Amino acid sequence: MENTVRNKQVILRDYIEGFPKESDLKVVTASNTTELKVKPGSMAVLVKNLYLSCDPYMGIRMREPNPSTLALIDAFVPGKPIAGFGVSKVIDSDDPVFEKGDYVWGLVDWEEYSTIHPIGIFKIDININVPLSYYTGILGMIGLTAYGGFFEICSPKKGETVFISAASGAVGQLVGQFAKLMGCYVVGSAGSKQKVDILLNKFGFDDAFNYKEEPDLDAALKRCLPQGIDIYFENVGGKMLDAVLMNMKDNGRIAVCGMISQYHLKANERIQNLPFVIVKKIKMQGFVCFDFLNSFPKFLEFVLPCIKERKLIYVEDIVEGLENGPAALVGLFHGQNVGKQVLKVARE
Amino acid sequence: MENTVRNKQVILRDYIEGFPKESDLKVVTASNTTELKVKPGSMAVLVKNLYLSCDPYMGIRMREPNPSTLALIDAFVPGKPIAGFGVSKVIDSDDPVFEKGDYVWGLVDWEEYSTIHPIGIFKIDININVPLSYYTGILGMIGLTAYGGFFEICSPKKGETVFISAASGAVGQLVGQFAKLMGCYVVGSAGSKQKVDILLNKFGFDDAFNYKEEPDLDAALKRCLPQGIDIYFENVGGKMLDAVLMNMKDNGRIAVCGMISQYHLKANERIQNLPFVIVKKIKMQGFVCFDFLNSFPKFLEFVLPCIKERKLIYVEDIVEGLENGPAALVGLFHGQNVGKQVLKVARE
Repeated sequence: MENTVRNKQVILRDYIEGFPKESDLKVVTASNTTELKVKPGSMAVLVKNLYLSCDPYMGIRMREPNPSTLALIDAFVPGKPIAGFGVSKVIDSDDPVFEKGDYVWGLVDWEEYSTIHPIGIFKIDININVPLSYYTGILGMIGLTAYGGFFEICSPKKGETVFISAASGAVGQLVGQFAKLMGCYVVGSAGSKQKVDILLNKFGFDDAFNYKEEPDLDAALKRCLPQGIDIYFENVGGKMLDAVLMNMKDNGRIAVCGMISQYHLKANERIQNLPFVIVKKIKMQGFVCFDFLNSFPKFLEFVLPCIKERKLIYVEDIVEGLENGPAALVGLFHGQNVGKQVLKVARE
Repeated sequence: MENTVRNKQVILRDYIEGFPKESDLKVVTASNTTELKVKPGSMAVLVKNLYLSCDPYMGIRMREPNPSTLALIDAFVPGKPIAGFGVSKVIDSDDPVFEKGDYVWGLVDWEEYSTIHPIGIFKIDININVPLSYYTGILGMIGLTAYGGFFEICSPKKGETVFISAASGAVGQLVGQFAKLMGCYVVGSAGSKQKVDILLNKFGFDDAFNYKEEPDLDAALKRCLPQGIDIYFENVGGKMLDAVLMNMKDNGRIAVCGMISQYHLKANERIQNLPFVIVKKIKMQGFVCFDFLNSFPKFLEFVLPCIKERKLIYVEDIVEGLENGPAALVGLFHGQNVGKQVLKVARE
């Protein structure tokens, strides 16, 4: 390997309004070279990024911070690289915890090489024989989101009915399979015939529909779930939520994981069926994966055997090359991904 | 007392559309006389109704049942008396559990005399020296609603901020005082200067505002609760809920007790700030008092000493005479009551 590189990065041009577009991001190559070494005494770690995770919440981070709008974590900074969860290989380290050749996962900037002070960076045990890219998803925050959101927020019971929107996405596919493992009746919605086929034939959902071909979402839900919905795992918001509220059973639970349909509208769609929350005694709860960090070891104990025994199937949509990162990220907001969207930056 | 009476009743004329009006109800006196005796062997109890409770959910029961609209319990039947919680005196009884002279509370029809088969009817211990009317409210389902909704749904902690809408109403006044007893900072909204005065000077709220005089509810909340809201006790729905969602703190809790502003609109007002449920990790939960029936003894153990030691103040708005029942009930939907609306049917 060369000792110096011209680092390539994906930069946010400026704060966005409306939906993220490819042109809001720019792939740049540094004019200066960077030495592939960390300074002695710096306690830093130099990593080569291998996989980057594309997630809907990143779109929110592309907007100007404003106390009256939504903000989960800090906004990205215009002119600087965007960031997210990634899997990386340690090239050089001045931190005694990490050594050259280690694989790690955690928050990194979208670039080929990053010099990091490893807070919130976890070492990967390569004896666990799974694709490294899984640490951007099923074995990382995505998996924990699905696990905590479903088991801790929804308290599922065998035989209950579960409905999942954006069901073929990163989180949805896992929740659906967790629910099947629990003995629930599981229905999902997705935005194409191909995705519906995957739900039915790959993930083992009991029923599924393409929301784009349903003129009446209420009717679609009543067709697939005539007895009503015990648990709704909410990923989209808007019209789907309004239709679901009418179809919830008494004491139903709604885990609000995301509302991707709402993040980039000028004004949020307005929901009219909230009074059902009273009459159906519905619990509706928002959460983020960090709420469940204490459950991470328990989650791994549950999920690793499921992967090994092929009780869980995990579909990734892997795009190669940092220069294709903007298209991969933006594609999420148009439902172009099938499964977890991952950007492969470099060969292992 | 005479041995026969011509019973007077409040009848629902027909299913309503829109807001309940006085003319939707009719006070009628039976043309036949009723003997003030129960048939031997009937196991029935004849009661004279003393106090009847006027509650917002009764408006929902005046509408035609329809699976796609809101329905907590069965609709009233046109041509028959409406019903609700009441306090009554036993006149005659063929049920060994009750005897002449007992006082009871529970669900009764709106009429002077009722022959009932006492399921869900509770004997009143007259050694507990409180006004009998309290069993229509603070010592009945209203008290249990406030207690369960606040303590069990909201898990309050000392020092947290609590906001209550319709705060001078039957449930709101109790929740506010419970929250003060917990050491919370308590703010309420109500619909008149008089009600705001009561909140501040009688119930000991820390702050309060008249929502009818606030052109911008968001600004009113930010003025009274600049640090945000930990707990919202929801009684009204609509615009107030939308403003509150923007002002919730992380991990906030919303107990959805009622949405009186929404029950009689042609279409519910639409809420646009639900995505805050995710980013603020809000729990929002609907409930009805029956969810907490197991907690009733614990509730009485808590509330009775509070009443005796005057740590709790309870304001009732008592209207006298069955013929004034329609106006009292309908007045609820226009905020005309100050405190718990009670109809006094007869002297004890």
